[in-house]
Amino acid sequence: MLLDADTLRAQARGCGILGAGGGGSPAMGLLASLRALELHGPTTLVDLDDLPDDELVLPMGMVGAPTVAVEKIANGGEARWIVERVEEVTGRKVAALMSSEIGGANGLFPMEFAGALGLPIVDADGMGRAFPEMPMVSMEIAGISPSPCVMSDERGNVLIVHPADGAWLERLCRATAVAFGGRAVSSEYLMSVAEARTGAVRGTVSLAIRIGRALDHAEGDPVEALLREVNGFRLIEGKVVDVDRRVTGGFTRGSAQIDGLRADSGRQLRLELQNENLVALEGERVLATVPDIITVLDTQTGDAVSTELLRYGQRVTVIAFPCDPVWRSEGGLRLTSPRAFGYDFDFRPVEEIHRGRA
Amino acid sequence: MLLDADTLRAQARGCGILGAGGGGSPAMGLLASLRALELHGPTTLVDLDDLPDDELVLPMGMVGAPTVAVEKIANGGEARWIVERVEEVTGRKVAALMSSEIGGANGLFPMEFAGALGLPIVDADGMGRAFPEMPMVSMEIAGISPSPCVMSDERGNVLIVHPADGAWLERLCRATAVAFGGRAVSSEYLMSVAEARTGAVRGTVSLAIRIGRALDHAEGDPVEALLREVNGFRLIEGKVVDVDRRVTGGFTRGSAQIDGLRADSGRQLRLELQNENLVALEGERVLATVPDIITVLDTQTGDAVSTELLRYGQRVTVIAFPCDPVWRSEGGLRLTSPRAFGYDFDFRPVEEIHRGRA
Repeated sequence: MLLDADTLRAQARGCGILGAGGGGSPAMGLLASLRALELHGPTTLVDLDDLPDDELVLPMGMVGAPTVAVEKIANGGEARWIVERVEEVTGRKVAALMSSEIGGANGLFPMEFAGALGLPIVDADGMGRAFPEMPMVSMEIAGISPSPCVMSDERGNVLIVHPADGAWLERLCRATAVAFGGRAVSSEYLMSVAEARTGAVRGTVSLAIRIGRALDHAEGDPVEALLREVNGFRLIEGKVVDVDRRVTGGFTRGSAQIDGLRADSGRQLRLELQNENLVALEGERVLATVPDIITVLDTQTGDAVSTELLRYGQRVTVIAFPCDPVWRSEGGLRLTSPRAFGYDFDFRPVEEIHRGRA
Repeated sequence: MLLDADTLRAQARGCGILGAGGGGSPAMGLLASLRALELHGPTTLVDLDDLPDDELVLPMGMVGAPTVAVEKIANGGEARWIVERVEEVTGRKVAALMSSEIGGANGLFPMEFAGALGLPIVDADGMGRAFPEMPMVSMEIAGISPSPCVMSDERGNVLIVHPADGAWLERLCRATAVAFGGRAVSSEYLMSVAEARTGAVRGTVSLAIRIGRALDHAEGDPVEALLREVNGFRLIEGKVVDVDRRVTGGFTRGSAQIDGLRADSGRQLRLELQNENLVALEGERVLATVPDIITVLDTQTGDAVSTELLRYGQRVTVIAFPCDPVWRSEGGLRLTSPRAFGYDFDFRPVEEIHRGRA
């Protein structure tokens, strides 16, 4: 499938929804991928089954605070420097790029890079959503090494990181992103096509496009159309009344409060965030948590509002829907359950919390 | 020449003097190199003329705040991980290690690494003293590329940095050292033996040993014996009355004030420092500046007192002596003159400032 402008626009809407508030503003990713389309023609979306077993798949994404990525854009050379180094270091051919995370701008930047390099992009990613930390990918669960991680910036700085483990990958790359000025392009968990077939979350680019099209073609309430597509739940409809957000250590952190309107009048929901929306609380009651996907929508359009763009007065609807099953496995929960983010409660599937509600 | 315990002890005293207050406490370097001597036997000191032209010389040192290096010691594996990666990446054999800077602990740590690896160490370094920033080496002046820079820590993290330029080398490696916990082992400006013959500052390990021996064998005032050996000048004899020191951005920064005693009673000297002593001021008058070497000595023993160990009440003598001529060249001054450190005055050779004084 060729990713034309219409498809990219649908994908951008879907990447926003899958981003759980993070992964960077899809609007930036869309601009970059539309520009690449203009310069290089459409990128090809391929299935992993159609690529040679032994060649490499390069997961790629931006590392850093999404707040910075809104202003600090790529120059297009970053991915080329990375691919060159990877081929030099491994002596193997790169068959295709992949989004490290399909959520947010990171679901789209690799389309730009792939276009500029004349490489296809695979219909898969490492998360099926967005997560704040680099080892939070299905490849980590599958036992694929994060090493070497290759990072670059728009000036031609290239770093090859061989971290002692996934936690050090995160720490070293985050520090580098900060040194670069808050943002870096990074590729890690390089793998063969054969490994990617079981190690990646498959079909997620198509999923994003499908979600975007559901919004595009919604008759009546777009939020309703979206909830049907993703098997989701409406947590609250209301207005943003407080946003406490700061950029610290390379992350956007904070919380937001939404006061209910209309049917939800009198209710109050609190979102806690680290790049992504981590938990949704109503008083003491947990309405949804990582790794399930919590997304804030513009109530009128159904489009996602990412954490760095939340602001006072926005009319929003907060929804939650099930994550990819890989995150509900033992290995997945070890990496991304509420406890992994420092909370003192276990994960409960969103459909279990809201069983009985429509 | 074999570096036995007696020689290492003399060298440690000399490295302290050449350190201009920086490069880390030589006592730590001495402990590490004596330990390596015990485990692996003596390291061989070789002249660059005695090594094969095409093999690699690896400059090596610690990056970070010396204040941290006092407590955070190496485990010995760091250098092995670096040498392995360098040989893998370049496909060339490493002939010998070299101190990136002969000053301070960094003049000795490479002895430890070389001992553990069974490699010789060359009688040369990149500075002939210590400097706070990584591109402040003779190899930068000689046009040798800083890339690839290979860094490691005691956990087995390895980074290969291909910086856009020397300033980015410094920024990225400093950020990595901070992420590692304040300290990293690093090798950069890799070069062939042939390149090192003109690109390095030669004979500086022997020089450190010679300085140490001059102190060891001093009859009467050790400071006098030292001044004769290095063609140095006594700036003040006194007492440390104020130390303003902080660790920030991976550097030890601050200033120290020394009030004169005995013949210097009534005088007051101010040292400004960034890991190393940068300038010595008496009121508005500049008594000595980078790149010349300003060292604080224990007045009784003639041993150097490094910037992280300066404290109230110490009886000290501050001396200054000429740096290697490479730093007084146009390229050298561009990197390390007072102006390069943000001061608004030019370099004047210490022997010119103190002409006429004994």
